[in-house]
Amino acid sequence: MRALFWDGSEARVVHRPEPQANADMAVVRVALAGVCNTDLELVKGYMGFCGVLGHEFVGTVVDGPEAWRGRRVVGEINFACDRCALCARGLQRHCPNRRVMGILNVDGAFAEQVAVPVGNLHAVPDNVPDDAAVFTEPLAAAFEILEQVRVEPGMECVVLGDGKLGLLVAQVLVRTGARVLAVGKHEDKLRHLRTRGVRTATVDEWKREPADLVVEATGSASGFALAAAAARPRGTVVLKSTVAETAPLNLAPLVINEITAVGSRCGPFAPALRALETGTVDVCSLISARVPLVRADEGLRLAAEPGVLKVLICNEE
Amino acid sequence: MRALFWDGSEARVVHRPEPQANADMAVVRVALAGVCNTDLELVKGYMGFCGVLGHEFVGTVVDGPEAWRGRRVVGEINFACDRCALCARGLQRHCPNRRVMGILNVDGAFAEQVAVPVGNLHAVPDNVPDDAAVFTEPLAAAFEILEQVRVEPGMECVVLGDGKLGLLVAQVLVRTGARVLAVGKHEDKLRHLRTRGVRTATVDEWKREPADLVVEATGSASGFALAAAAARPRGTVVLKSTVAETAPLNLAPLVINEITAVGSRCGPFAPALRALETGTVDVCSLISARVPLVRADEGLRLAAEPGVLKVLICNEE
Repeated sequence: MRALFWDGSEARVVHRPEPQANADMAVVRVALAGVCNTDLELVKGYMGFCGVLGHEFVGTVVDGPEAWRGRRVVGEINFACDRCALCARGLQRHCPNRRVMGILNVDGAFAEQVAVPVGNLHAVPDNVPDDAAVFTEPLAAAFEILEQVRVEPGMECVVLGDGKLGLLVAQVLVRTGARVLAVGKHEDKLRHLRTRGVRTATVDEWKREPADLVVEATGSASGFALAAAAARPRGTVVLKSTVAETAPLNLAPLVINEITAVGSRCGPFAPALRALETGTVDVCSLISARVPLVRADEGLRLAAEPGVLKVLICNEE
Repeated sequence: MRALFWDGSEARVVHRPEPQANADMAVVRVALAGVCNTDLELVKGYMGFCGVLGHEFVGTVVDGPEAWRGRRVVGEINFACDRCALCARGLQRHCPNRRVMGILNVDGAFAEQVAVPVGNLHAVPDNVPDDAAVFTEPLAAAFEILEQVRVEPGMECVVLGDGKLGLLVAQVLVRTGARVLAVGKHEDKLRHLRTRGVRTATVDEWKREPADLVVEATGSASGFALAAAAARPRGTVVLKSTVAETAPLNLAPLVINEITAVGSRCGPFAPALRALETGTVDVCSLISARVPLVRADEGLRLAAEPGVLKVLICNEE
């Protein structure tokens, strides 16, 4: 089969052996896969990964346990051991023995087919089209914030970053009744949010009134200092950016203002799928381009360009 | 009166005008004052402070409202405006208009006398000697952790740093029933803790088993990365060090392991005074030296030497 393979120096579409199913592992024929900023970090050296890239996908189970065959699915990306102390505590996403699809020790979804543990599969509701379902994984990452931080109606929230994840986070937060201000560099990206009840400001317009909760989703190593400065004393900063670089940081403002900084990564698929099913979050307007799998390397480059939001890699039969 | 004055380039004992009392402000004749690592950071340029140093003290009220005159007191260091939105929320320690004794815009306690807002005073219980009472402020900073983080019996806690604050934090945490391991460089400093039910390890001996809670009290900019690596996934790191320097940091481990980092500064005096009154925390064994006020500049230099714990500046009449 064809797949976008990152060999540590170049990402190329190559022929790879098809994955095999077994009692615990399903093979999914990928319909659509989304390019994430993490993919762009991986090809800068983040995680030292080599293999097939891609971890956001929707597709159809073509092999594996009978109960799943033929079903349209999305899949969680952390492949846990289910035997360690963290798995026993329900922290499978933090299993120290985990493989992570397209990120750590296991091939990903920029391919004709991808292997996924059966326990990681979620059936996609019939009324959710592939174009929306492919956003389940990043939308779950946005919902993770609600699992970690108590967000209350009326709370003043600022989302820094108008990239793909920032736009999802702002929508997820505003559903709770919180007052959400999205701050970014691109008026054309922020515009989408205003119809969803989210206030927006470009970085220049932003008044920087201290917020109860600041979500750092800039994708940049410099975002942290900006976020810490935007939170009120005893406020909370949620860190969503995973970047390969090290940046010079002074943590004294965090200590002086007693800020709580919460690292936040993958999230729960169930509320994300429900939000897509009920249409309470808009994801489809984030699609900037569709690129066929044979040109997935171009898709990766396109996704890195300024102003581009979600690039989808399409499997054409 | 004499006072240790930091002019931005040199700390010298000089003559300064005596502070004046009024309806809201008491004048305290300082008996003892403690040198804190923050003082050492201030003379490296932290906060850009100029003035009389010192914020840990015990003394006797010599002027001010009748009700306080003659009483032995300690005093909170944040002088709030009591008029702003943060003060209205009970966050006086975070008042944006605050002055901070010996740290920000107001003279401190390495002096014969110091002025303190009446609302900041706490009477010292009779059975608490000056040698213990002078530790109220740093002990309160240790108790601040319990105001911010839920510490439960059996929780695995690691305290990084065997300086003055680390030794207090370890004692405060172990009182809760948590399992506490103190990690430091100096076996002779750690030894004090073992009689208090705290396990200890030098950095070389430390097995680095993932902890639920890690308190970073190394006083070093490099402590953060060490602390983040010592916490289990979804664990908590409390940041206690305020350092002038900026350090290169990569926050990706915080995000990947979904660590919560909690900045922690000044704390509540009441539980600290109760712990001193009941003798459940040992502070007096932390006293390394006593230096008279006329040689307070030497006391500052002494406190910066390796192996030295608390240096007290004494007012001899």
